[in-house]
Amino acid sequence: MKVEIIAVGTELLTPDFQDTNSLFLTTGLNAIGLEVSFKTIVGDDDRDLAGVLRTALGRSRIILCMGGLGPTADDRTRETLARLLGRKLVYHREIQARIRDRFRRRGAPMTASNLKQCYVIEGAEVLDNPNGTAPGLWLEAKGRKIALLPGPPREIRPMFENRVLPRLAALGRGLSVRRVIRLTGLGESAMETRLKPFYAAVPPGVTVTTLASPGDLAIHLTYSGAGPLAEAETRLDRLERVIGKALGPRIYSRNGDSLEEVVGARLRAKSKTVACAESCTGGLIGHRLTNVPGSSGYFLESAVVYSNEAKTRRLGVPAALIERHGAVSSRVARAMAMGIRRTSGADFGIAVTGVAGPDGGTARKPVGLVYIALAHARGAAVVRSLFFGGRAEIKFQASQKALDLLRKKLSPGSGMAL
Amino acid sequence: MKVEIIAVGTELLTPDFQDTNSLFLTTGLNAIGLEVSFKTIVGDDDRDLAGVLRTALGRSRIILCMGGLGPTADDRTRETLARLLGRKLVYHREIQARIRDRFRRRGAPMTASNLKQCYVIEGAEVLDNPNGTAPGLWLEAKGRKIALLPGPPREIRPMFENRVLPRLAALGRGLSVRRVIRLTGLGESAMETRLKPFYAAVPPGVTVTTLASPGDLAIHLTYSGAGPLAEAETRLDRLERVIGKALGPRIYSRNGDSLEEVVGARLRAKSKTVACAESCTGGLIGHRLTNVPGSSGYFLESAVVYSNEAKTRRLGVPAALIERHGAVSSRVARAMAMGIRRTSGADFGIAVTGVAGPDGGTARKPVGLVYIALAHARGAAVVRSLFFGGRAEIKFQASQKALDLLRKKLSPGSGMAL
Repeated sequence: MKVEIIAVGTELLTPDFQDTNSLFLTTGLNAIGLEVSFKTIVGDDDRDLAGVLRTALGRSRIILCMGGLGPTADDRTRETLARLLGRKLVYHREIQARIRDRFRRRGAPMTASNLKQCYVIEGAEVLDNPNGTAPGLWLEAKGRKIALLPGPPREIRPMFENRVLPRLAALGRGLSVRRVIRLTGLGESAMETRLKPFYAAVPPGVTVTTLASPGDLAIHLTYSGAGPLAEAETRLDRLERVIGKALGPRIYSRNGDSLEEVVGARLRAKSKTVACAESCTGGLIGHRLTNVPGSSGYFLESAVVYSNEAKTRRLGVPAALIERHGAVSSRVARAMAMGIRRTSGADFGIAVTGVAGPDGGTARKPVGLVYIALAHARGAAVVRSLFFGGRAEIKFQASQKALDLLRKKLSPGSGMAL
Repeated sequence: MKVEIIAVGTELLTPDFQDTNSLFLTTGLNAIGLEVSFKTIVGDDDRDLAGVLRTALGRSRIILCMGGLGPTADDRTRETLARLLGRKLVYHREIQARIRDRFRRRGAPMTASNLKQCYVIEGAEVLDNPNGTAPGLWLEAKGRKIALLPGPPREIRPMFENRVLPRLAALGRGLSVRRVIRLTGLGESAMETRLKPFYAAVPPGVTVTTLASPGDLAIHLTYSGAGPLAEAETRLDRLERVIGKALGPRIYSRNGDSLEEVVGARLRAKSKTVACAESCTGGLIGHRLTNVPGSSGYFLESAVVYSNEAKTRRLGVPAALIERHGAVSSRVARAMAMGIRRTSGADFGIAVTGVAGPDGGTARKPVGLVYIALAHARGAAVVRSLFFGGRAEIKFQASQKALDLLRKKLSPGSGMAL
């Protein structure tokens, strides 16, 4: 039961536009147990579109095609599909009346170009469009279910939800349940090596996909099948336990939550507060922590002390210490963390100092070298990291490691597992 | 000369992820006069991928396929294409040495799963990957040019620019010149209304596309044609002048530079420094300013004073002022800006205080209300804004408006046009 989404529009092939409708369609399809196998984007070109539709008819049982139903000359989806299927286009007086009525309500005359929207592929059902002039079409042909839908989001969304999804629900394989495990502190291939022995144990109906970016990894477990829900959950639970053993405390979330959400929830649960002293991350840690609604309950402040003077003035880092060890050093990181904790009154002080690049690196202190410190009631710990990538990647990885240190510190039963 | 982009990855068929690499590839292709005809997205499924590659070989002369080159079991692009073309996979000792070397530099052992990345399709050229383990491949077969590229953006980008584009340049249809005008402080439909009278004046060969997100607008002018370059530039110049008149000082960049880059360049040119006091933006302004390499030359610090205590302690904002007017008020914004300027010694102090939501709004101070202040040698100015959208959009728009105030202040001949 392959499902294919086709987006038609030359603008979707430029660098400026992207198909976002398909994400919405996918959410709805997944909810009834249908997975998407192909997404195809093609321009407003008769021959190309015909080829894409022919390919889709050959490989997919359900085809959702959006765009190209408008009144302009380059809107050709209806005509092209009719020709491919060898069906006629039939003029519908009711559609004309509806479009005319719509224009009248807006005090504008119906234009001649709208007349082409009154043609319907023979044997197709018309899907009303309360938010636009282009009606959608639903048809079954050659064992395929096909929906032609308008492109504008506010037109396609209600039409898909109210008129298309109910028709597809009966075809769904029952259930699709997704679980997202997120982790940090491990490279992609190291994760793969740890997971490999367990791939044979993946329960039937479950697929595993992994996604990696510098400093962050995600494992998606998806159950698709007949259900019942309890059985799906049991299979996912079993696999999740195995993965949990393989990857251990590197896992920070088993429900897709971001690291800053997890850290925030733990701080809130323990009624603890945090303050940051950021140098090379430049405010990113504060930005991430405050992306979480309600973060004012546990986040007090971040001192983005980019200049050496600011490190001394705001946090009391001795100028002599910076002079002797350099701003990027274990000693200065520790002094920053203790300084922000002391001056803010927070329970935890996080500090980051490093070389984000692309310039400023030396042989002894290369681009990517970052010291991260965490100060708490009983002292402070510092870790040294060397991150790879461009400026943005180094900043992100440093923020990730800093937040992860705090997460581990807040783990149930953590002594201070740095 | 059809060009097709194929993105491989099951995660790209979920509602959570979207292919963004193709936008980058398209920009590069357009620049050498090649247009994309098809984009196809397919999961990590052997049969589906084989079908997609077969279709592409049938209709496209240039095929850029990304993803599925990694070390994990579901990465199958190399193997699938080799089988389709009836070519063997050959083990490359140099790739193994390169990967091993990469791991050694990072102090980690090479894993067995990386070995599959050492296989190369017979007759293909290896494209080095300085940013990852997966090498790319370039091959010509059946009159087609095919590039297999890694999925992670920081790997595919340099590889595409340095190794693939030069190979394709000779195939381009002449000239494609793009110019990106960026602006802020205007809604999308307001911009459209101002631009509409000039659409008739768009010179032949030039297309205009606009791109809008809350707080930021971009206008792309693209010339495609035979050239010569001077003629293309003349047409774009003419159109740019007209647009410049219509949109005036809202335009912050005519070469695609980000607002933080523009502000940074102006500070540097005038040898001025800036420090920030951020409440609801949470560090985002510091983060954006420090995304620009070399920002330590003009950015001193940002005090992310989320709690009221921090506003008082760090910036000397009187507790009584906060008590009387509330933390989100014109008076407090001004005191924060003057406070950060005074305590940091910077030439300019930017301050932001507002309600980012989703909770915490009241009838008098709704979600989205933000006060932004700019302190300078001769005093301070405050503006009040009401932004719409979710928490992330409100934070971004506030940071955008704050940076834009500083940009205008730094404009040639600005008196203080707030």
